[in-house]
Amino acid sequence: MNNKQIRVGILGYGNLGRGVEAAFQYNPDMELAGIFTRRNPEDIHTLSEAAKVCTTDHLMTMTDQIDVLIICGGSATDLPEQTPKYAEHFNVVDSFDTHAKIPKHFKAVDEAAKKGGHAAAISIGWDPGMFSLNRALAGAILPSGKDYTFWGRGVSQGHSDAIRRIEGVADARQYTIPVEAAVDKVRNGEVPELATREKHTRLCYVVTEEGADQAAIQQAIVTMPNYFSDYDTTVHFITAEEMKQEHSSLPHGGMVIRGGNTGIKGENKQIIEYKLTLDSNPEFTASVLIAYARAVARLAAEGKTGCYTVFDVAPAYLMDMPRADMLKNLL
Amino acid sequence: MNNKQIRVGILGYGNLGRGVEAAFQYNPDMELAGIFTRRNPEDIHTLSEAAKVCTTDHLMTMTDQIDVLIICGGSATDLPEQTPKYAEHFNVVDSFDTHAKIPKHFKAVDEAAKKGGHAAAISIGWDPGMFSLNRALAGAILPSGKDYTFWGRGVSQGHSDAIRRIEGVADARQYTIPVEAAVDKVRNGEVPELATREKHTRLCYVVTEEGADQAAIQQAIVTMPNYFSDYDTTVHFITAEEMKQEHSSLPHGGMVIRGGNTGIKGENKQIIEYKLTLDSNPEFTASVLIAYARAVARLAAEGKTGCYTVFDVAPAYLMDMPRADMLKNLL
Repeated sequence: MNNKQIRVGILGYGNLGRGVEAAFQYNPDMELAGIFTRRNPEDIHTLSEAAKVCTTDHLMTMTDQIDVLIICGGSATDLPEQTPKYAEHFNVVDSFDTHAKIPKHFKAVDEAAKKGGHAAAISIGWDPGMFSLNRALAGAILPSGKDYTFWGRGVSQGHSDAIRRIEGVADARQYTIPVEAAVDKVRNGEVPELATREKHTRLCYVVTEEGADQAAIQQAIVTMPNYFSDYDTTVHFITAEEMKQEHSSLPHGGMVIRGGNTGIKGENKQIIEYKLTLDSNPEFTASVLIAYARAVARLAAEGKTGCYTVFDVAPAYLMDMPRADMLKNLL
Repeated sequence: MNNKQIRVGILGYGNLGRGVEAAFQYNPDMELAGIFTRRNPEDIHTLSEAAKVCTTDHLMTMTDQIDVLIICGGSATDLPEQTPKYAEHFNVVDSFDTHAKIPKHFKAVDEAAKKGGHAAAISIGWDPGMFSLNRALAGAILPSGKDYTFWGRGVSQGHSDAIRRIEGVADARQYTIPVEAAVDKVRNGEVPELATREKHTRLCYVVTEEGADQAAIQQAIVTMPNYFSDYDTTVHFITAEEMKQEHSSLPHGGMVIRGGNTGIKGENKQIIEYKLTLDSNPEFTASVLIAYARAVARLAAEGKTGCYTVFDVAPAYLMDMPRADMLKNLL
């Protein structure tokens, strides 16, 4: 493909943006062109000393200095606005993860990217992302089967935030935990029907404000619709000090497992499992974003425009490796 | 993509060809156009009653009745000759698995396919195939890391055949077994250096001819270069009856695991694991071949020519699912 350094911009500097910044050292074919933030650039402390920090206003003056813009905003309000907006002017990648709204987001980004003559990739990360890719591949190979996705053990930031919004809660961390018995059934090829409660449990660590009613808070958590009421939920109250000591990192992971049958009478079981065990959820998501940024830069260099997903990108585009080495060393 | 039924020919009717034949029932967008054999067609007992069996001589008269030819011969002598030969006249897929000779095979097939204006995919299956794809994807996401491939527990047909060639051996089955301690180290992200002996053990079941010298056979097995001398090998002598009762199936599987670090100081470990647990090795390989036959038919319909590998095919090409459903249900 091409040997030129790929210049990458980061829009949004939270956990995910910092993860992308940290990933350049592992990807020598790519370089950081700038970090763009809505905050005052002088207030930003970057991980790498050389990083250039600018306001988002400055971004539009740099269209010729950025090959791909990785948009690291949130899916609730940032990305539905930012990704179509910038796809008209840059090649872009995002990690949009509101599953139900993906078709709408795809359409908006596809139209903007085609209008501007750029390539885009949305919903890149691990779920959506590598898990989606594995659901697709396993489904293509074993159409007779059924796929199961288990998440955890890991911190769900959405569920942690939901607890933090309860009155009297100072801080919270929610771990999603797959039910081992359910995982074992799927791994054995039993193709079970599993209710929500049978797949995952939820474990919450909560720091309360002084004088808060812990019994009321516990009740508010376990009965919260959508987030907790369909699960077996355990709540532990801890101190701010314990929270900081024991729950500062953001581990996550999970698995996609598909069991299916083959043979003229369906007599043979075949199990495909893809499993992630992640010390840092945002840094792993960032690592996937960087790989797809490489792909988007290459697709754009070939003159391709419009929106791509993990289903649409051939794996070779993700790799910084000469084709002859792929055939010789990886195939 | 297109809604027309994809017409598939099977060339070679051993375990793999039978696996492909059995896979059509799970893939309603594809149909069997014919089975082609070097044997007398009247001697072939197919799994499906409707299957049409012809001699390979007949194949060249059917170029307009076959959209993709799946070539199910052996890698040692059949495929190096057959795949380039037929790629000039058909879209083809094979499971060529002699890793060291893949670049040479790719070149021959690519030239033939381009000459004839056809699309081809080689080295499709699970290793090479889905394991190669996972080595590539994991390497693109975690470039700092290292990948490990473990095979088994499962029957290695190459190793079973090697034992059968020893004088006095009537039948043999060799199981490759991954060393649990090594797998655990890799799963823990320890990135160990592992000698051949530390990764796998070999377990052999052997039926001897009457009067054979079992001690000499055991010695011949455990000291056999390339196949056994670098491994801890166990040999059990059993009866023909036990062989038939307990070792008739061809289970296999294994895993590709990559551990890598992320973070500005490499402080976080991330582990990606892809694992297969297969009741039938040939039927699973056949299931992958069918999915890539779908992809090859679609690539050819788009006017693409030349040779493809798992690295070059976007996952959407493998799936019999409308694009809107992929975005809605799988992403």
